[in-house]
Amino acid sequence: MSDERFFKREGPFTVEVLAQKIGAELKPPERAGQIVRDIADLEQAGKDDVAVFCNVRHAGAFAKSHAGVIVTSRKLGEFPHNGSALLLSNDPRLAFAELGRIFYPAGAPKSFVHPRATIAATASIGAEVAIAAGVVIGEHVVIGARSRIGANTVIEDHVSIGSDAVIGPNCSISHALIGAAVNISSNVSIGGEGFGFVPGPQGPVRLSHVGLVIIGNRVEIGSNCAIDRGGLGNTVIGDMTALDNLVQIGHNVRIGKGCVFAGQAGVAGSAIIGDYVMVGGAVSISDHVTVGDGAKIAGKSGVMRDVAAGETVAGYPAMPIRQWHRQTTALAKLAKKSD
Amino acid sequence: MSDERFFKREGPFTVEVLAQKIGAELKPPERAGQIVRDIADLEQAGKDDVAVFCNVRHAGAFAKSHAGVIVTSRKLGEFPHNGSALLLSNDPRLAFAELGRIFYPAGAPKSFVHPRATIAATASIGAEVAIAAGVVIGEHVVIGARSRIGANTVIEDHVSIGSDAVIGPNCSISHALIGAAVNISSNVSIGGEGFGFVPGPQGPVRLSHVGLVIIGNRVEIGSNCAIDRGGLGNTVIGDMTALDNLVQIGHNVRIGKGCVFAGQAGVAGSAIIGDYVMVGGAVSISDHVTVGDGAKIAGKSGVMRDVAAGETVAGYPAMPIRQWHRQTTALAKLAKKSD
Amino acid sequence: MSDERFFKREGPFTVEVLAQKIGAELKPPERAGQIVRDIADLEQAGKDDVAVFCNVRHAGAFAKSHAGVIVTSRKLGEFPHNGSALLLSNDPRLAFAELGRIFYPAGAPKSFVHPRATIAATASIGAEVAIAAGVVIGEHVVIGARSRIGANTVIEDHVSIGSDAVIGPNCSISHALIGAAVNISSNVSIGGEGFGFVPGPQGPVRLSHVGLVIIGNRVEIGSNCAIDRGGLGNTVIGDMTALDNLVQIGHNVRIGKGCVFAGQAGVAGSAIIGDYVMVGGAVSISDHVTVGDGAKIAGKSGVMRDVAAGETVAGYPAMPIRQWHRQTTALAKLAKKSD
Repeated sequence: MSDERFFKREGPFTVEVLAQKIGAELKPPERAGQIVRDIADLEQAGKDDVAVFCNVRHAGAFAKSHAGVIVTSRKLGEFPHNGSALLLSNDPRLAFAELGRIFYPAGAPKSFVHPRATIAATASIGAEVAIAAGVVIGEHVVIGARSRIGANTVIEDHVSIGSDAVIGPNCSISHALIGAAVNISSNVSIGGEGFGFVPGPQGPVRLSHVGLVIIGNRVEIGSNCAIDRGGLGNTVIGDMTALDNLVQIGHNVRIGKGCVFAGQAGVAGSAIIGDYVMVGGAVSISDHVTVGDGAKIAGKSGVMRDVAAGETVAGYPAMPIRQWHRQTTALAKLAKKSD
Repeated sequence: MSDERFFKREGPFTVEVLAQKIGAELKPPERAGQIVRDIADLEQAGKDDVAVFCNVRHAGAFAKSHAGVIVTSRKLGEFPHNGSALLLSNDPRLAFAELGRIFYPAGAPKSFVHPRATIAATASIGAEVAIAAGVVIGEHVVIGARSRIGANTVIEDHVSIGSDAVIGPNCSISHALIGAAVNISSNVSIGGEGFGFVPGPQGPVRLSHVGLVIIGNRVEIGSNCAIDRGGLGNTVIGDMTALDNLVQIGHNVRIGKGCVFAGQAGVAGSAIIGDYVMVGGAVSISDHVTVGDGAKIAGKSGVMRDVAAGETVAGYPAMPIRQWHRQTTALAKLAKKSD
Repeated sequence: MSDERFFKREGPFTVEVLAQKIGAELKPPERAGQIVRDIADLEQAGKDDVAVFCNVRHAGAFAKSHAGVIVTSRKLGEFPHNGSALLLSNDPRLAFAELGRIFYPAGAPKSFVHPRATIAATASIGAEVAIAAGVVIGEHVVIGARSRIGANTVIEDHVSIGSDAVIGPNCSISHALIGAAVNISSNVSIGGEGFGFVPGPQGPVRLSHVGLVIIGNRVEIGSNCAIDRGGLGNTVIGDMTALDNLVQIGHNVRIGKGCVFAGQAGVAGSAIIGDYVMVGGAVSISDHVTVGDGAKIAGKSGVMRDVAAGETVAGYPAMPIRQWHRQTTALAKLAKKSD
């Protein structure tokens, strides 16, 4: 059960209402009036909770779960269980995500501009925004309606941010045009000069970086990420793409829509990433590499060449994942033989 | 010698006093009255300094050192040296750490609340705290006695921090219950939403994250770390555990006590780390993996499977370190042969 | 073309003027009066732009480019092209970097001290500085002439920063002596306690860190980097060295001049890096390792042993790059055979 000081929970709801909201079939139907108070983990859930069972590996936990209600698929719902009511859904994972938003809606935060925020006279601030203490907003900045800017965040001259954005504290944003409904966590740096250097007689000489960072709608950016602006041309992050914490995006990188980058991944300058690419944690993608739509890159890989659309790669250097597994196995055998 | 502008040094002390404070035996005893003014490196130390010799690899430096006093073990004290007085200790490394605190005690900083800190009326602020300029403290926050909060740090609603904490500047802390005597460096993010997504028809959909970050007593967290809160249930870091800089801790990770994570290590969601685990720099630990008590993970490893208690692993994928060395050797031979 | 809201462009210039400024030979000379308005990418450039052609791999783009003027070498200038005027230079890359500064000079920013900056009475602030809102400057800090400090950056007691520095927002700087003309991006942490621990009976015990961070002139530090101060002795970064984003520099590391560290690279405590070393992205260098002058370390490598001056290494563990390629090839063959 969540800590009520930190999280405001809606409800309770009857199972019937939840079934309707997420478009699921209740089994057995006579449990329609049962009360549900919270979402919970399959193993921790009690009689007032709804949990999810969406992976056959958890069949044991499903069999023993004390959850009052469990969301699952028609197929997984055939496994033995402990008397929970079932909500049968075509996509139980997504249905459970929706239940999360039903019990914990984003809420309509209070609108305010803190007197200790420093906002340039030329900035354009939308309706119903929330701008916390210590925020610094530069000349000609545009902040869309209902956006929230966390304390001590700095938004430099001419940056534009769409409506319904949530930006956490201590972020530093410059040289960027940012879409609507983005979610940017804390201590994020956006718009820094790219790391393009030319060797000079006394050391590296930085190239001029006169491009921007262009961020689409509904993009998610985790804590302590760093996203550089382009040199000539822009750095681009497409709609619905999500970055975890401590991710590095180099200058002139172009990322498509719906991609997912896990923690500490990094993309070097001018790489091109397609749509719906999945990038594991601590992956490194070299400069000027192209990764096709729907590709998957296993955690910790070092991608040094192009990856075709739909391909799954792993390793350092990265290669098709089956090949990597073969190499891993062959090397283990070789070492054993040579003992 | 340390820069007196930055560091306030206590002393001088006689060797006798130091021997007593750290429980060491002085050899020869007639050097009891010798004066010591500072701690120093074995190679840089002069006649007024105390240094440490705790590794046989430095026997050459020990032989030539001009340190007035050297802390060492009875065994290492048999090596030839240059006339330094010796302080013989069962654990010279720990004894030298204690000497550091004798010459450079943490001190009792001035207590103050800067007029440019913004503190919610409902926050509970302990006695003798130091709260710097630009700090923003939300509703119902609890700050324990004698804690120090660095400039421009943001502590969101309901967060609780124990007594004697030292928190650096520009940190962003939300959704967290934090113990006593923690040491959190600068630009640290704690309590961000975890990176749990479900694929949706238009892109990734984030799961609700309604858990907290629970941090024990005497935990150390380096600069620019990011620690996410739990989804269902909490992210937990046990007493005395230390994280170096730029470490990533994912949602629902559980870390035991007394662990050490070197710089840029990362732990993905729901991994479980036992007590006294040593994690090298740039190590990546995959989600849902379990690492047993006292395990050691060599720098740069990619841990993709469980690691047993007490085991030492290395490599990508990580394997027992002897096996990794065998594989590394076998591969080198193979490449030579195939030339 | 750059966004005029964000970037102030000088010019236009005639080709003749540009040729003179960068010391290039114009071919054909009769194009001297041609007007140039901006720098651009070879593929995007139009008739008013100057682009660069400095790598034979882009000969196709050179042949088709619509750029009015192209900077190149005498040799590359022999390739077929589309009627652009050519500026022939001994070092076209460096010449193009100079053109960037001609069109986009750093400018002389307005000098000011924002009333919402908090500056200790004992701090010494040079002439013509720019100190933004929310900046906090401690006792006895020295800021050189014409330096700019970004909003909400915190500079702790006794830190000294040379003239003409540009420091971005939300940085946290302590225990540091910093040279002139440095460029430090946003959310950077400098001067944190090093991660030197001794195992104690109840967990790790931190060693006293009474050294400083010493940063030379014209050093560049990217966003969200973390640089720890020394334990006994200092952490040192030499003149003209450049760090990309999210780079970790451990305590007592000594880095020479003119080095380049790409994103997410990390150097563990007490490593010694020579002059003009090139370190790829996500490289990890172990503690106490020495890397010689002019060495090159390929991206994602794990350097566990010393690297000789001038050597190029790759792999994990890192080895001479030719050996790494041989091993990679040999392993691929072995896996194929064993199918």
